Amino acid sequence: MTDAHASPDGNRPAPLYDVSVRTPTHAERARTMAQQVSVGTLCTLALEPKGHPYGSLVTTAFDAGQPVFLISELAEHTRNLRQDRRASLLVAESVASDPLANARVTLVGQAHPVEEASLSQARGAYLARHPDAAYYADFKDFGFWVLEVESIRYIGGYGRMSWVRAEDWLRADPDPIAADAPGIITHMNEDHADALPLYCRAFSKAEDTTAATMTSVDRYGFEMSAITALGPRPIRLAFPTPISSKTDARKALVALLHEARAKLGIVPK
Amino acid sequence: MTDAHASPDGNRPAPLYDVSVRTPTHAERARTMAQQVSVGTLCTLALEPKGHPYGSLVTTAFDAGQPVFLISELAEHTRNLRQDRRASLLVAESVASDPLANARVTLVGQAHPVEEASLSQARGAYLARHPDAAYYADFKDFGFWVLEVESIRYIGGYGRMSWVRAEDWLRADPDPIAADAPGIITHMNEDHADALPLYCRAFSKAEDTTAATMTSVDRYGFEMSAITALGPRPIRLAFPTPISSKTDARKALVALLHEARAKLGIVPK
Repeated sequence: MTDAHASPDGNRPAPLYDVSVRTPTHAERARTMAQQVSVGTLCTLALEPKGHPYGSLVTTAFDAGQPVFLISELAEHTRNLRQDRRASLLVAESVASDPLANARVTLVGQAHPVEEASLSQARGAYLARHPDAAYYADFKDFGFWVLEVESIRYIGGYGRMSWVRAEDWLRADPDPIAADAPGIITHMNEDHADALPLYCRAFSKAEDTTAATMTSVDRYGFEMSAITALGPRPIRLAFPTPISSKTDARKALVALLHEARAKLGIVPK
Repeated sequence: MTDAHASPDGNRPAPLYDVSVRTPTHAERARTMAQQVSVGTLCTLALEPKGHPYGSLVTTAFDAGQPVFLISELAEHTRNLRQDRRASLLVAESVASDPLANARVTLVGQAHPVEEASLSQARGAYLARHPDAAYYADFKDFGFWVLEVESIRYIGGYGRMSWVRAEDWLRADPDPIAADAPGIITHMNEDHADALPLYCRAFSKAEDTTAATMTSVDRYGFEMSAITALGPRPIRLAFPTPISSKTDARKALVALLHEARAKLGIVPK
């Protein structure tokens, strides 16, 4: 979990917040990221040269955590899978301009055509994500395939990585506010910039914070970059209980502001 | 080379231009695309489960057509390659919003650490593309690796695909005007929209073209979508000789316009 490439100067300053506050697990982070991505690289074993690792582009969707594909029998990857079902799928976010700062996840497992009993659900999940594929979904050479995930490699960016067990991956829920997070962050930074340093001063050790920027928000809490006398420092604060909507986020942030003001003895203008 | 998934109605109208005009080969198209991409998926064979195809994100650069990586001995892919050098690299463009309309190429080969004699050149190629990597290029666990390309799968979008031989891949030059092409296209469509239908009328069978839009330009020629009585139709025209710069493109397009006007008996205002 730590950055094994850490630079010679490994003396990082002590965190200014309670690092035991609940944060998304790697399984949750990975599921949340994957849910927002619709294209990935499928790695299969080639027919020729036999057993050679072969990467190809696929569009994908997730059906309860299992990647679903709509692929043609004529395509290399499908011919490969017909011979050897072992496969992995790499999906990556493309948020940061530095590719290595982006989260990515490799799902390792066995691929097979979706069974009749699951077809309606898999098809629904795929076409909800790729509505334009409806016109060739019934072409004779196309079929729905699923990758049964057995293990998961999660890399959240620099120095945040781990193997995730399939049961944890399958049990984890994507963050319910992931889609709203960018809007919440922009709103807080643009319209409530005065609240952010109060959170830092009231609920963390960064008591000299003069300004702060919200950098992320998830079901369990939010993170800020606080401007302190010693420079910018990360602060994570938890919501009292996990939230599940934009409305929840607003209520929780307003309640925390009242609490912060009370604690700091600030009377709102 | 044809679209094997072609819809039942396979009766396409006959082309309105000379389809024997020189067009970029698949090797050239693939080299041109790859040259503009700096991130890809490396497919290797896992240590555990042994031999399982494993995909991971890598940043890359091309040294005379061979992909170069700067990877850590601590990373899964490097540990995989230390045991089995077989690998492939998928690189994809991200121009079209439909992922399957974008070109992608899978480079299949053997990966190994760059040899001492080639190190300076490989390092130079990589750091020219990824200048920020300079700060960790000398970390002890990082090293430059190269994928010796043995075969290439090129998919140019829907229905344009082939296997490319390594010798053709290595011999092909990326298109010298690729970086300028978007600017040339915008300029022609915005400032010289009146010239485009004249090209179509003078040099193709689309003699009733009322308007046209340039859709691509490369060293050998350019393509337009011509509005004809029967709807929009693609037209490709060749330059008299291959061009190698934006200046060449301008000269060639001006000369063709003069020729078109002469042929059509149009006196410029």
